[in-house]
Amino acid sequence: MKHSSRPRTGPSCWTGWPTRWRSGWLTWESGMWRKPHELKYLASKHPNLVIILLDVTNLASIEAAVARVEENLKGSGLNLLINNAAILRLTTLESETRENMSVVYTTNVTGPLLVSQAFLPLLKKAAQQSTQKGLSCSRAAIVNMSSEAGSIKNLLIWDFGHFISYRCSKAALNMLTKCQSLCYAEQGILTITFHPGWVKTDMGSSISDQAPLTPDESVRGILNTLPMLSEKDNGAFVDWKGNHLPW
Amino acid sequence: MKHSSRPRTGPSCWTGWPTRWRSGWLTWESGMWRKPHELKYLASKHPNLVIILLDVTNLASIEAAVARVEENLKGSGLNLLINNAAILRLTTLESETRENMSVVYTTNVTGPLLVSQAFLPLLKKAAQQSTQKGLSCSRAAIVNMSSEAGSIKNLLIWDFGHFISYRCSKAALNMLTKCQSLCYAEQGILTITFHPGWVKTDMGSSISDQAPLTPDESVRGILNTLPMLSEKDNGAFVDWKGNHLPW
Repeated sequence: MKHSSRPRTGPSCWTGWPTRWRSGWLTWESGMWRKPHELKYLASKHPNLVIILLDVTNLASIEAAVARVEENLKGSGLNLLINNAAILRLTTLESETRENMSVVYTTNVTGPLLVSQAFLPLLKKAAQQSTQKGLSCSRAAIVNMSSEAGSIKNLLIWDFGHFISYRCSKAALNMLTKCQSLCYAEQGILTITFHPGWVKTDMGSSISDQAPLTPDESVRGILNTLPMLSEKDNGAFVDWKGNHLPW
Repeated sequence: MKHSSRPRTGPSCWTGWPTRWRSGWLTWESGMWRKPHELKYLASKHPNLVIILLDVTNLASIEAAVARVEENLKGSGLNLLINNAAILRLTTLESETRENMSVVYTTNVTGPLLVSQAFLPLLKKAAQQSTQKGLSCSRAAIVNMSSEAGSIKNLLIWDFGHFISYRCSKAALNMLTKCQSLCYAEQGILTITFHPGWVKTDMGSSISDQAPLTPDESVRGILNTLPMLSEKDNGAFVDWKGNHLPW
């Protein structure tokens, strides 16, 4: 399935997942689904990890996933939603097409919008159930996985590729995040947009073999950074080292 | 026709159009087309004004318009392309839909991308034919009509309406502009993204009756600002008073 995301959710914890985060949900891009042995290995090592198929461009699929997550949560709320699923097309300004613009935007921006709308009741429930005050990833949070390539000021890795549809989608995702942060904060939900670094993943390596970060280094940075986030970061563009980035 | 734009082009000048700008092309949103008497009045007052129907979401329509413009230019290049056509849906984060996100993005971002691609040869021709050096609206320029509502930092008129799909589209248009400015500058073409102010137009008044600017005031500001733009403004977010805005 093209443009689909592959989510996982666990009512408890996974490798390196801080135990204070009781429940998390992460959408994955479709490349991950093409590696079923890796998913099976993860699930075998972590019994609390539940893997659910989800197409972020399909409302019925999103609603079905929410129902499965709710079932697994057994009355609890959802603490953390990571909208990670995204696609990239290696285009230039000359070769960019209407179809690419549409497909990339629908997956990278409309997807996180619809997934967040659908999971909102479970996130609100987590915020209400929490004994914590203020905003944090351990209470209730949405993390939209963006990219510094979508920073209009910084235009990360411009010299390696222009991929216009991707950059436009990430700038729009940053705007969506800012809007979500203003609307959801009063319900106890933190919202941030995140740059995980340029990582040697299928996507990162498709741009060039010079991606500087291994997935382990990026994930370690993310896991160190997320627990540090609070009200002061709501609506901000944060990187894997915890720095704020310009729009 | 929904999502269409209504362009006009004139090989000479129109009211207030600085005579140094020999040829300009402006896309209009469909509301203007519903006022044929206004268009007829303009055309009757300015014989050099040529009005051509264009749907910015339809590649065949764009190509047909380019052919018509080229015919009217009689061997000259096109000095100024103003991508003004845009739509807005009065949504909230809760009411935003997949369909709105798609339609607004296709019109407000993919439209300017495709129109600019199609007019590029005529813009290049104008830059090559010009005796001027450097970048300016009188040599060759693309002006993408954005909005400060699409500034992630400023979020203009948030208290009057959230219209998520519109804000996301304008942040993406700002990114597109930045990419265009980096690619087109070496061909002698200036590219900027523009905030015309919150204006008492059909669109501006649909948000609230408190839009502070009349169309005349906005257009006067634009006409004073465009001739002042040069290399230092390439890729910038400029408002009708000539100020640079944050992303």
